[in-house]
Amino acid sequence: MNVDLVDWMGSDESIVQAARVSSGTTGSWAANKGLINMLARDRHGSPFEAVILQFKVDVPLFVAREWFRHRIGSFNEVSGRYKVLEPVFYVPNGGRPLKQIGKPGAYTFEHGTQTQVDIVEFAHKAGAVEAWHLYQEMLDAGIAKEVARNVLPLSLYTSFYWTVNLRSAMNFLSLRWAHKDAKVPTFPLYEIEQAAVKVESYASQIAPEAMKSFNTNGRIAP
Amino acid sequence: MNVDLVDWMGSDESIVQAARVSSGTTGSWAANKGLINMLARDRHGSPFEAVILQFKVDVPLFVAREWFRHRIGSFNEVSGRYKVLEPVFYVPNGGRPLKQIGKPGAYTFEHGTQTQVDIVEFAHKAGAVEAWHLYQEMLDAGIAKEVARNVLPLSLYTSFYWTVNLRSAMNFLSLRWAHKDAKVPTFPLYEIEQAAVKVESYASQIAPEAMKSFNTNGRIAP
Amino acid sequence: MNVDLVDWMGSDESIVQAARVSSGTTGSWAANKGLINMLARDRHGSPFEAVILQFKVDVPLFVAREWFRHRIGSFNEVSGRYKVLEPVFYVPNGGRPLKQIGKPGAYTFEHGTQTQVDIVEFAHKAGAVEAWHLYQEMLDAGIAKEVARNVLPLSLYTSFYWTVNLRSAMNFLSLRWAHKDAKVPTFPLYEIEQAAVKVESYASQIAPEAMKSFNTNGRIAP
Amino acid sequence: MNVDLVDWMGSDESIVQAARVSSGTTGSWAANKGLINMLARDRHGSPFEAVILQFKVDVPLFVAREWFRHRIGSFNEVSGRYKVLEPVFYVPNGGRPLKQIGKPGAYTFEHGTQTQVDIVEFAHKAGAVEAWHLYQEMLDAGIAKEVARNVLPLSLYTSFYWTVNLRSAMNFLSLRWAHKDAKVPTFPLYEIEQAAVKVESYASQIAPEAMKSFNTNGRIAP
Repeated sequence: MNVDLVDWMGSDESIVQAARVSSGTTGSWAANKGLINMLARDRHGSPFEAVILQFKVDVPLFVAREWFRHRIGSFNEVSGRYKVLEPVFYVPNGGRPLKQIGKPGAYTFEHGTQTQVDIVEFAHKAGAVEAWHLYQEMLDAGIAKEVARNVLPLSLYTSFYWTVNLRSAMNFLSLRWAHKDAKVPTFPLYEIEQAAVKVESYASQIAPEAMKSFNTNGRIAP
Repeated sequence: MNVDLVDWMGSDESIVQAARVSSGTTGSWAANKGLINMLARDRHGSPFEAVILQFKVDVPLFVAREWFRHRIGSFNEVSGRYKVLEPVFYVPNGGRPLKQIGKPGAYTFEHGTQTQVDIVEFAHKAGAVEAWHLYQEMLDAGIAKEVARNVLPLSLYTSFYWTVNLRSAMNFLSLRWAHKDAKVPTFPLYEIEQAAVKVESYASQIAPEAMKSFNTNGRIAP
Repeated sequence: MNVDLVDWMGSDESIVQAARVSSGTTGSWAANKGLINMLARDRHGSPFEAVILQFKVDVPLFVAREWFRHRIGSFNEVSGRYKVLEPVFYVPNGGRPLKQIGKPGAYTFEHGTQTQVDIVEFAHKAGAVEAWHLYQEMLDAGIAKEVARNVLPLSLYTSFYWTVNLRSAMNFLSLRWAHKDAKVPTFPLYEIEQAAVKVESYASQIAPEAMKSFNTNGRIAP
Repeated sequence: MNVDLVDWMGSDESIVQAARVSSGTTGSWAANKGLINMLARDRHGSPFEAVILQFKVDVPLFVAREWFRHRIGSFNEVSGRYKVLEPVFYVPNGGRPLKQIGKPGAYTFEHGTQTQVDIVEFAHKAGAVEAWHLYQEMLDAGIAKEVARNVLPLSLYTSFYWTVNLRSAMNFLSLRWAHKDAKVPTFPLYEIEQAAVKVESYASQIAPEAMKSFNTNGRIAP
């Protein structure tokens, strides 16, 4: 899975500028840091929309499906209607917990046994090979790409651009990373959490004080 | 594919009521019909947001993926993390054009030969059977549902609730149905167009004058 | 200020129905109440979007300006371009605290002295009378409504329809009511808080368990 | 009225990049120009969301009220709760048509007589002076800013930051400028149209081909 920052607009200073228009005040950098923290704490969210991040993301379809549920932001994705897709599939690695224990809303996860790891690896690989074979067979027979792709599995990689403001990115991060500083519990999918860590790393480079205030105040999107 | 209307709020009268608050006027039913037409014609879109439709939709994943790109509206979907999925898969029927001719943005479609129909049917069925077998195998080995489902194909059916206002539904319909009355050309996926026809049928029952005005004015969402 | 519920769709049951599609389960009413609470606690927000409320609201312009900042929802408002406006103006009553103490983000308010109450009442009334006189004078001289209305003050009443889902309404309530159960402090304008109390009263009639869970879990919109 | 571009992200190239991820193709600059035109023509709107514009806007309150109805975008505005406002008021100049002829939805405008121009100027100035006097009087008596500002008129200037993607900006422009190339008629307020002209001028500098395609294709937001 890749998450690359391809463009961005703004910084901590943009947040301060957007916030200070309301009061018409100016301040030292120390005061500005305090202001950013106050904005996050008291849920004055709109100044965080003054920062924009644009990512190129490569993840399996089952991760993309969760990602696209976030409606405040823009997506442009590889189309299986327009393009012959590429045979890149996700196979869980050793770090992926395989056993799900408990009930919906209160799952815990444990690592699998070696047998389970082997079964998962085999199933993902065998499924991908078989599906790719059927996809190719249909394309070779002159079938439309948009029909042939139906047989491809959710483990297939897709690529998309995601343009999102920092406030919406914070909301994504609050739900997709079970972070130790989070005031409210969340139960993200293992794979989207791995991607969220990368999103947060870039966000913290572009607007470090804003992201610090997000963590300090319990990771609730302001 | 099923599209069922499960709840709704409002009617043509709600649109008139929302629109007339701006001018403080009242009118006969004939005048109200003219008003609705004027609203659609001159792109006064917000009154059409006073009508809400709620659908239960059963479609393959590749159709749901397009549907969920529509951000003005609400979705609740079957979760492969929480639920053992059911073995219901899409197999294109005879009506589905199989040959894609031309370039992206200017495709035309033609019906397949009998051999092509057979290949498509075989590939969809064989792919589904194999994937389902691997899914079951992983579940039997105690693998988490959210891992096992990765091998399932895009032809798998999913179910979701969709709550949408009429204006956003019109936008969906303008893009997902290549209708003869459309002023602007559109190239929807065959399967989502079939579902869109059902959406429009319900919308036309709930707000007939509004949907008439949508058609009369070139099917551009106001 | 009036806030009237003019239409609605759904109930606590709609929230349960939308949520249970994900797991494919059913449950007793006791279980459903627990489910709603879990949804609010763990910020599974989308099922709360299955309930829609439609209000008719009459408030001064300075309140409407705050209200219209809430972007998830639909508005239709009286237009000063299309309609000769009516001379209804807000004058703060005795309950309105008049003294603002402290700094932005940390204000406290106190009641005014009798002199202050008198000054405020006089200024609001004198300003309204003078502005209304100028408005009439321009209309009498054949000036367009949309030009004449420029002289009217922010204390002028306006009317609008607001169609909003319950999740977005919860967000409004979390910011516009400094409620004792709120986990995060908020500093709403006195007048919009009075209106928010009425919004919450209706929401609690339509979806009582959902609103109870909102309060129990610290009034953070899920 | 001022409209200044304070920051931006992207260009025509960003639109091409976002669009081409779907087909996985590359192209010459000539081909890219054709692609942008095709995107606008066939309403492939999402690539236009890859460009972000951030404006600082100074307009009267009655213009800001229309502007804030555009929900896809971000606003941060001067707050009359936090700041003592400044006495800057709008007075229509000679170019402002003063006579409104016809019915809602079909108005035409004509220039006023000299008497009408004088009446409008007098009313705007007298109203502003009187309102400002009452505002000051309340502030001097120790009344909270958020109460005192109620008496100020809609002609008062406000300032805000507006962060908006190019697609949403196109929608704004399609509704707020009665442009000769528009396929669908629109009846914007004179003052917001003047501001829209400035918005478009900046947009055309940042993404000239995109804005050309917007005009060529009838100024319907894609």
